[in-house]
Amino acid sequence: MSKFVIGVDLGGTKINTGIIDESGKVILSIKVPTLAKEGPYPVIERIKKSIYDVLIEANMKLEDIKGIGIISPGPIDSEKGLVVNPSNLPGWDHIPIVKLLREEFKLPVMLDNDANAAALAEYMFGSGRGLKNFVYITVSTGIGGGVIIDGKLYRGTNSNAGEVGHMTINYNGPKCNCGNFGCFETYASGTAIARFAKKAVLEGRSTLIKELAGEKEINAQHVFEAAIKGDNVALELIDEEAFYLGIGISNIIAFANPERITLGGGVSNQLDMFYNRMMETINERSLKSMVDVCQIVKSELKDDIGILGAAAIII
Amino acid sequence: MSKFVIGVDLGGTKINTGIIDESGKVILSIKVPTLAKEGPYPVIERIKKSIYDVLIEANMKLEDIKGIGIISPGPIDSEKGLVVNPSNLPGWDHIPIVKLLREEFKLPVMLDNDANAAALAEYMFGSGRGLKNFVYITVSTGIGGGVIIDGKLYRGTNSNAGEVGHMTINYNGPKCNCGNFGCFETYASGTAIARFAKKAVLEGRSTLIKELAGEKEINAQHVFEAAIKGDNVALELIDEEAFYLGIGISNIIAFANPERITLGGGVSNQLDMFYNRMMETINERSLKSMVDVCQIVKSELKDDIGILGAAAIII
Repeated sequence: MSKFVIGVDLGGTKINTGIIDESGKVILSIKVPTLAKEGPYPVIERIKKSIYDVLIEANMKLEDIKGIGIISPGPIDSEKGLVVNPSNLPGWDHIPIVKLLREEFKLPVMLDNDANAAALAEYMFGSGRGLKNFVYITVSTGIGGGVIIDGKLYRGTNSNAGEVGHMTINYNGPKCNCGNFGCFETYASGTAIARFAKKAVLEGRSTLIKELAGEKEINAQHVFEAAIKGDNVALELIDEEAFYLGIGISNIIAFANPERITLGGGVSNQLDMFYNRMMETINERSLKSMVDVCQIVKSELKDDIGILGAAAIII
Repeated sequence: MSKFVIGVDLGGTKINTGIIDESGKVILSIKVPTLAKEGPYPVIERIKKSIYDVLIEANMKLEDIKGIGIISPGPIDSEKGLVVNPSNLPGWDHIPIVKLLREEFKLPVMLDNDANAAALAEYMFGSGRGLKNFVYITVSTGIGGGVIIDGKLYRGTNSNAGEVGHMTINYNGPKCNCGNFGCFETYASGTAIARFAKKAVLEGRSTLIKELAGEKEINAQHVFEAAIKGDNVALELIDEEAFYLGIGISNIIAFANPERITLGGGVSNQLDMFYNRMMETINERSLKSMVDVCQIVKSELKDDIGILGAAAIII
C-alpha cells in the first residue's frame, strides 16, 4: 500500500504542492505563482507540472502515491469535482479539475474548499486530534469555518456548512460582500480591522498605524505592529477585535456545543494579543456549562495547513 | 418483542403521559397537573401514577412496554439521568429521575431535554422523516432547538447543542435571562412579541391588543388575534417578528446548511401570518446556494410532540 499522498493548495496568488505521509508529515513542497489572470487552463498546466516536480524532487513515482487532494477557494462542487467560479480565479466557470487531474495521473483525486480541508487537517494532524466535536475558524481577509462532528467533516446539504463568517452579530450592522448586514466577518476579519484602522486615521487620531503603513494601504498587520509598540489607538482596535471575535465564537458555542474551537488564519497568529479580552466576552456571553467544556486554541499547523488539508481529504 | 413505549412529558404546569407505538401513533395519553410547587417527590409520585394509569386504561401490562422516555425542561444531565435545576420545577436539584423510575418499573428509562426530544420526534415521525441534516426550532415562551446530523440527534459535548435562542443577533441588544445581550430569543420569542406589544400600548398607540387582553397580561396570542382583526399595530409587530425570525434562521442556515428547518411551538402555530416576510428576510440575508436547498416548514406534530419526543428517545 502506498503511504504517501499529494496535496495541492490552489490559491489566488500561489499554488502550493506537497507530498505528505499518512501521519501528516510534509516530505517536501513546492510553491509556484498561480498567475491566475492567464485563466484556468494555464493554471491547470502549472498544477500538473508542480505535481511532476514534487515527485521528481522526492525521487518518487506515481505508484508511490495513493491519491491527490486539491483545495480551492469556493464556491466549488466537491461532489462533482468542479471549481465553480471563485472571485480570485478569473475565468474559472465550473472547471472539472478533478476529472482533468484524474485523466492525467490515473489516481484518485478529491476536491474540497479551503476551510473544510483546514478543519480536517487540524482534526487529523493538529489541535483537533482525538476530538469528537470540533470547529475550526480561519480569521484572515474573511472568516470561514469547518465543522467536525462525531469525528467526521460535516459538509451540510451542499458542502456549505460552517459559513460562520456570515452569521449575523448585528442585524443593523454594515453591509457585507455576501449581501447580508452585520456579518461576523464585517466586524472581526482582517479586512474589518483594517477598515476600523483607516477610520481612526481619517478621524485624525494620533497613531503610528499610518506611519507603519507608509505608502501601502493600511492592513491588519500594521495595527498589530503598532500595538506591539504600545500605540493606544492600535490597542483599542485590538480590544474591539477581541470583543467581536468573542461574540461570533459565542454564537458557534451556542449552536454546536463543541469540545474545542481552533483559530487559524493570519489574524489568529496574533491570538496572544487579544486572547484574554476575547475570553472575557465569551464568558460573559455564553452559557457557563457550554464554555466550561470548550477550549479555544490557536492552530498548530501554520503555513502548511493548505497542503495538509488537501492531503487530509484523500487520507 | 414489545412494540410500545411510554413517553412522559414533564412540564412546569402539566405532566402528559402516553403510550406510543413504534410508528409514532399515540395509543392513548393522560394529562395531570404537575403541581410543581409541592417539590420533586410528590411530582415523581404523580408521574408514576400516570404511567400505571395509562397502562390500565390501555389494558396493557409492563411486559408490553419496551421502555420509558421522559423529557424535562433543562438543564438536565441526560447521561447521568438527572434533572439538574429547571427554573420552573422549584426544589429540583440533581434529581435522579431515571434511577427512580427504573427502580419502580424495571424497564429501560431515558431522559432528554424537550428541544432535543422534539427534534427527534419530528425526525422520526414528522416533517424531518428521511432527511440527513435537519434543525428543529421551537418558538414559544423562549426559543430552543434540536439538531439532526447524518440522521442522528446531535447533542454536542454535554447535551447543550442547538441552543439557537441564545445566539446573538445584535450584540448591542436588550439583556437576556441567560446573561447575554441581543439573543435571538430576546427578539423573536413569544415573550418578546408580548414585550413589544406592551411597549406599543404604553406609548398610547391605537390598537385592539389591550382590549383583547382585558384584565390579563398582554401575550403573543393577543397580538395574533388583533392582527386577524386587521389591527395595524399588531400587523406591524408580526412584521417585526417575521424579520427577527428571518435573521435568526439565516444564522442557523449559515452554520448548518440544513435540508430543512421545522418551526414548532406556540408562536409557530401562526406561521402563515409571517411566513412570507420571514422568507423575504432569509432570502436577503443568506447565501443563495444555501437557501436554495433548505425548506422551512411548520411542525406536523402539534400538541403530542412532547410525548412523541419522549417516546422517540427510547425507540
